[in-house]
Amino acid sequence: MSHDLLLRNVRPMGGAATDLLIRDGHIAGIGNTLDAPGCPVEDGAGALLIPGLVEAHTHLDKSVIGMGWRPHQAGPRLIDKIETERRLKHEWGIDPQRQSARQVVQSLSKGTTHIRTHVDVDDAVGLAGMAGVLATRSAYADVMDIEIVAFPQSGLLIRPGVPELLEQAMRMGGDVVGGLDPCLIDRDPKGHLDAIFGLADRFGKQVDIHLHEPGLVGAFSTELIIERTRALGMTGMVTVSHAFCLGDPDLAMVDALLDQIAELDIAIATTAPSGRPAPAVAKLRGMGIRVCAGSDGIRDTWGPYGNADMLERAFLVGLRNNFRRDDEVEMALDVCTHGGAAVMRLAEYGLQPGNAADLVLVDGEALAEAVAARPPRRLVVKRGRVVARDGVSLIAAP
Amino acid sequence: MSHDLLLRNVRPMGGAATDLLIRDGHIAGIGNTLDAPGCPVEDGAGALLIPGLVEAHTHLDKSVIGMGWRPHQAGPRLIDKIETERRLKHEWGIDPQRQSARQVVQSLSKGTTHIRTHVDVDDAVGLAGMAGVLATRSAYADVMDIEIVAFPQSGLLIRPGVPELLEQAMRMGGDVVGGLDPCLIDRDPKGHLDAIFGLADRFGKQVDIHLHEPGLVGAFSTELIIERTRALGMTGMVTVSHAFCLGDPDLAMVDALLDQIAELDIAIATTAPSGRPAPAVAKLRGMGIRVCAGSDGIRDTWGPYGNADMLERAFLVGLRNNFRRDDEVEMALDVCTHGGAAVMRLAEYGLQPGNAADLVLVDGEALAEAVAARPPRRLVVKRGRVVARDGVSLIAAP
Repeated sequence: MSHDLLLRNVRPMGGAATDLLIRDGHIAGIGNTLDAPGCPVEDGAGALLIPGLVEAHTHLDKSVIGMGWRPHQAGPRLIDKIETERRLKHEWGIDPQRQSARQVVQSLSKGTTHIRTHVDVDDAVGLAGMAGVLATRSAYADVMDIEIVAFPQSGLLIRPGVPELLEQAMRMGGDVVGGLDPCLIDRDPKGHLDAIFGLADRFGKQVDIHLHEPGLVGAFSTELIIERTRALGMTGMVTVSHAFCLGDPDLAMVDALLDQIAELDIAIATTAPSGRPAPAVAKLRGMGIRVCAGSDGIRDTWGPYGNADMLERAFLVGLRNNFRRDDEVEMALDVCTHGGAAVMRLAEYGLQPGNAADLVLVDGEALAEAVAARPPRRLVVKRGRVVARDGVSLIAAP
Repeated sequence: MSHDLLLRNVRPMGGAATDLLIRDGHIAGIGNTLDAPGCPVEDGAGALLIPGLVEAHTHLDKSVIGMGWRPHQAGPRLIDKIETERRLKHEWGIDPQRQSARQVVQSLSKGTTHIRTHVDVDDAVGLAGMAGVLATRSAYADVMDIEIVAFPQSGLLIRPGVPELLEQAMRMGGDVVGGLDPCLIDRDPKGHLDAIFGLADRFGKQVDIHLHEPGLVGAFSTELIIERTRALGMTGMVTVSHAFCLGDPDLAMVDALLDQIAELDIAIATTAPSGRPAPAVAKLRGMGIRVCAGSDGIRDTWGPYGNADMLERAFLVGLRNNFRRDDEVEMALDVCTHGGAAVMRLAEYGLQPGNAADLVLVDGEALAEAVAARPPRRLVVKRGRVVARDGVSLIAAP
């Protein structure tokens, strides 16, 4: 379907007011003299124009959005959350297709146009999560780009049959090979990392590994990730998610790790967690490291928070990193837009003519104000089509 | 002015739906059989009913709300922010009366019914901040209760004439004597604390001291605060704001300090900062320590964030303290309601009949959901009067 649209009176990245013409879902031109007879017109009312927000780390398959309030049950350890989730997915009937569709629609309402989602592959749900999210990806292909990480959430080697399931998940349509805490969950760092890097190498795909491991254990796992990235020539093909260890103030080796992470173009995904070590965004960006951000789980068995708002995530990135100046707050926003696009290797992303017309209009005088105030999105455009208005999705959820 | 109101179909603290009758600005009764002919009625539509939110640490005199977006200028150190603010207050014409009124109205729209504000008293603005906030307090007395801390933001002993100004501020109508980093800013911990405790003792008033000092320096200042609280018999009369040092994981003496803080009923005010040590809310509450929360500065020269939403603050308290279970998230909300009331010693606070009808209606199935989702407040009632509806204040701002 071809989408044409003329956006009048918008301020790209907070600059001077201008118009933007969309032809066939792509940005055809930006300027004040644009005229397009017969083309639908939206008045931007001087709002800020930014590229679509990028949700670069979430879990579409297991939100309980729309299923009523469900009090948190899991204990404090990571393994408690894993085991509780395995139980509740079944008890609560968390349907991956329905729930991923609901989260996609919520993300649209907040201005997100691209999602990288991890999808659980384990010996309890098998490939049902993959099937559900793949069905949602297909059903919502016109309004959301979704990249799928086949993710061994329960562990890879400690669960029978999961390596084979992960390979099947990649054959089904997984885009990225996932991994998880090779020491503290999978208990075999060499085995875990050899398996997921080997799989990615065979499929010619990227790796995105959840690394919650703190301190020196996390640093050790990072070293093993670096070694495999180098040995397999996978420069630019690896993302480490969370990477709390890289924010550990007591770990002298962080700088040496970051040097190699920069050299091998390994990306870092962060949620900007409050109250625990986390990678320092400005430092990483200053070294040229790609940094993206995500909501992580949105109202799921892991925790009650999350609303899919990547402008709020930029605010949390700002708080976590003590960003106060406009250029700093703009960096937080950039992490949630171009940063995610760089990690997902999006080819047609950004406000330059020729790129896909994935756009958000948000009120504010300056980009930093949009992050600080996070008002409802005035307009969300996906490939030229208006998909949300005044904070409300125009696309139906199941 | 007498305010009567019948709230139909509301769920006090997330309980069963019932009605609540307000007579003469006070809660007259709660129950399903209430009838009040001629009384105005509001349909609560099954919304959660909570007591008014309490903003227990903010700075009404210096927000730049409504003055356009003003990029942050200050350097990284505390003293940079102090010096920059002294300059910009003058350059930008930050009028304490106008700006405090604007913030009060914004707070109302979010459901805040009580505010403890620090007000700068220094050798640059003199008592202009006090005069402005006192005027606002008077003008908005019907819709907001405001407690004023006379606050030597620039330092007490390092600035000529400020001790005398602080005493004048208390005579003008200050409710609480403020203090600030007796070591690292005022450079004379004994002199600073003797001065502010002496002043509070003479006026029979409480103390609320900003303590940003980290680690052992902060612990040392805390010891001096404890010593003076004990010596002057000021049990229950002292609040320490921020108290980052009490969250320092490397400080072995924290538990000993907390024991004395509990014994002397010293309260702790927190903003739940992301990415730096902060008092552990559940631990303090478990020891019986009164804990309140606040937005701190709202869009001022100290930083670009802040929106006066104490439900969002509860969310940030939850994130900072890793609260996930409903009882934990409810604790975060309690800090932002009853916790603040306990610090401000509010006599008529809470949902019990006989108390002032300071109430908020917010959509959600459970209290924890209200904190996680933070929807616009459906209705805000101050002493029986509807002051905000659907997130919009009905009271005008200048």
